[in-house]
Amino acid sequence: MKRGRRPGPSTTREAILSAARERFSAVGYDRTRLRDVAGAAGVDVALVSYHFGSKEALFAAAMAMPVSMPSLIDDVLEQGELEDFAARLLRRILDVWDDERTGAPLVALVRSAMSHEPAADALRGFVRTEILDRIAARLGTPDAGERSVFFGSQLIGLLIYRHVLRIEPLASMDPDAIVAAMAPGMQHYLTGTRP
Amino acid sequence: MKRGRRPGPSTTREAILSAARERFSAVGYDRTRLRDVAGAAGVDVALVSYHFGSKEALFAAAMAMPVSMPSLIDDVLEQGELEDFAARLLRRILDVWDDERTGAPLVALVRSAMSHEPAADALRGFVRTEILDRIAARLGTPDAGERSVFFGSQLIGLLIYRHVLRIEPLASMDPDAIVAAMAPGMQHYLTGTRP
Repeated sequence: MKRGRRPGPSTTREAILSAARERFSAVGYDRTRLRDVAGAAGVDVALVSYHFGSKEALFAAAMAMPVSMPSLIDDVLEQGELEDFAARLLRRILDVWDDERTGAPLVALVRSAMSHEPAADALRGFVRTEILDRIAARLGTPDAGERSVFFGSQLIGLLIYRHVLRIEPLASMDPDAIVAAMAPGMQHYLTGTRP
Repeated sequence: MKRGRRPGPSTTREAILSAARERFSAVGYDRTRLRDVAGAAGVDVALVSYHFGSKEALFAAAMAMPVSMPSLIDDVLEQGELEDFAARLLRRILDVWDDERTGAPLVALVRSAMSHEPAADALRGFVRTEILDRIAARLGTPDAGERSVFFGSQLIGLLIYRHVLRIEPLASMDPDAIVAAMAPGMQHYLTGTRP
């Protein structure tokens, strides 16, 4: 004889996360609306907001992101001058990626986005909206979109060499040495004189 | 009634390529020896050399690489001064990746290396030995290994943003604009003053 169980909060949460993963993958980050996720999960949109708060938080939960990148970026932007933003952000991001607990899920996320087009679509919008646009808004220059994308490309390249492909000597280099060597060029992308 | 066909040169070639893919994936680029590939394919090592010439060429064929990266790098190193190597290499590499015929197989290779650990092992050794070490040898400084790996990380990040994740505005930016914006920083990694 089977015993029934009423769907509880954790079931609802899982249903929302599952619908969110599907939706982010199908139409990308930017075109995903909380109400559509709610509809697909068969719950009221208020429940989605109750459980996750925002689209960014829903995405982070759906993709098993261990750290809120937008909060981290805002934090670093607020805690010092724009002129040494690259060094401060790089240090914080290396801390997150170098720590096995927070780094492993991020490596998995990047791997998935590289190999599956739907995951790439989802990540593309998130990177654009929640990371690059956030930095660009702080720069406030007409070419801020280009500057932030140059910066972002060096950041992902570093993380892929260090943590996905694990190419030496970058894979085991001291974080301080990496920041010293790479932050100036990354900072130049953001605030340096352009040709 | 089935008709038999004697194994011809194309069958031998395929057997060697298949054994090579397996071997490169199993033990990585550096520890793969032509004689082991020959053994696994059931042919004499002279046949491997006859068909492919070198380990690098065998790897390129096995991974369906449309362009010989080592030859391209040697070419660029020989055709000008080290002081503007980054701009010249970046221009050539963008040409290769921006062209659908040569770019698509490279995107596929990077995708595969990102998602499958064996493919990552194979690519890691190739990048190290045939790309980074080649550049480092030309630099000839004690820190050349670090310099070339910083350079390489920016290169892969750019290519991934432009061609794998396709993040705007980098995905559709004019190649000249990319070279103008990114070559100076990449050149600095190779020959600039370090902190």
